[in-house]
Amino acid sequence: MTRQQLFENIIRKQSFLCVGLDTDIKKIPRHLLEEGDAVYSFNKAIIDATADYCVAYKPNLAFYESLGAKGLATLEKTVTYIRQTYPDQFVIADAKRGDIGNTSEMYARAIFERAGFDAVTVAPYMGEDSVKPFLLPDKWVILLALTSNKGSLDFQMTADANGERLFEKVLKKSQEWASDEQLMYVVGATQGKLFSDIRKIAPNHFLLVPGVGAQGGSLKEVAEYGMNSQCGLLVNSSRQILYADNTEKFADAARRESKKVQEEMAEYLQWITKEK
Amino acid sequence: MTRQQLFENIIRKQSFLCVGLDTDIKKIPRHLLEEGDAVYSFNKAIIDATADYCVAYKPNLAFYESLGAKGLATLEKTVTYIRQTYPDQFVIADAKRGDIGNTSEMYARAIFERAGFDAVTVAPYMGEDSVKPFLLPDKWVILLALTSNKGSLDFQMTADANGERLFEKVLKKSQEWASDEQLMYVVGATQGKLFSDIRKIAPNHFLLVPGVGAQGGSLKEVAEYGMNSQCGLLVNSSRQILYADNTEKFADAARRESKKVQEEMAEYLQWITKEK
Repeated sequence: MTRQQLFENIIRKQSFLCVGLDTDIKKIPRHLLEEGDAVYSFNKAIIDATADYCVAYKPNLAFYESLGAKGLATLEKTVTYIRQTYPDQFVIADAKRGDIGNTSEMYARAIFERAGFDAVTVAPYMGEDSVKPFLLPDKWVILLALTSNKGSLDFQMTADANGERLFEKVLKKSQEWASDEQLMYVVGATQGKLFSDIRKIAPNHFLLVPGVGAQGGSLKEVAEYGMNSQCGLLVNSSRQILYADNTEKFADAARRESKKVQEEMAEYLQWITKEK
Repeated sequence: MTRQQLFENIIRKQSFLCVGLDTDIKKIPRHLLEEGDAVYSFNKAIIDATADYCVAYKPNLAFYESLGAKGLATLEKTVTYIRQTYPDQFVIADAKRGDIGNTSEMYARAIFERAGFDAVTVAPYMGEDSVKPFLLPDKWVILLALTSNKGSLDFQMTADANGERLFEKVLKKSQEWASDEQLMYVVGATQGKLFSDIRKIAPNHFLLVPGVGAQGGSLKEVAEYGMNSQCGLLVNSSRQILYADNTEKFADAARRESKKVQEEMAEYLQWITKEK
């Protein structure tokens, strides 16, 4: 999917919501456990319930890997289901990978060729040659810049002798590797006004924003400080939608929650459509 | 496995070799492809051929994930085989994981509980709460400090206002999270004399050292600058051993290669046994 297509989907659906499929078998409604592949049944119901209100899905690979080979099969089935049923959805592998060249190539093969994702989250610590193998035609790298967790303070905020912080160095350096047609950044919703600092360095890039909801970030603040003229935001929500209800009505609750977020997003999107 | 047990294995076997199981289905001898699970057959033969000459195995998860659910099943079978047949081997998941707390917990579950590894490589970018969920009883975290690849220059060498480089900050900060009984570091063999700088900050920790062989690092230099009184090194070799020969005699060739490395290591180990 191109940047332009993604933007068109956002305007058409009046949403920049990404639904995080962090499906935890311990948290899904009990009645599903009687089915053959409970996690897949859950995902399918969540996807059908939310597809009208979001533009992207983001399965979190850890949750599938914790179930072993069976979990990986569930992941592949889930991606295939989205691809076939909702081909306009952008599908992100939340994997936080990154290794030496020949190994990153293998991860890229796993995520893009085998599982069929559009994008993958990548950790920048190992530098250029660990990131480049993921930059395949029509595929996106979403590089960690400033994450939503408390540990983001440990290294990402460290300033060099010129006052440039590590996350700023990552934003600058990585723009030498790919354009904003293939590169996005992860910026946590909890970072508030730091979005302005990020927009100084990466005005046009899409940002994938986790941390609204369970982690405490504010959607309004993210939109205020992070939105650009092509929206430039994919805001993720996982637990708030997935586990809105744990009875047989979980899918209805997920639909309501995602619709609520979409409606709030539609308000913020007026800011850019009015500007035109 | 405790630090002391690992050291005793090193002295008894006169080796600090870790064999990297980066098994690439495109590189293994063709005749194996006729078997049901060619990668497993290859791994089993390599393990049987090298177990006398190494103290650790390090499957690289990317290579298994690139084969999908089937690959993950092969990985689990491989770890189980090592566990049951060679229980004195230290088994490392080369995964370079690291994510927010609830996700790192899921990765820890996948790697330790399900697959049965002793240790996992973790990327430090997301800080303390991304690393801590891996610090489970009797398990090890091997944190990326200074990697073997060219991209290690991009961010790891960046100095802050006090001249402290990022890899040094990672070494210092992470020692607040766990002791050297549960924490090791990845330091690339290509880093030569920088091992001395690392030993100033982490004198007692074990270092997992990739980059000897195909990547060009020198075993002698690593031993000279990196060894401590309890050895403190696990030097990895993958391609040089795995693909020493691609005929039906591949296992014999792997045995010869690993024996050669072990014999060189035995020489360097005299430095510490003589000191005693």
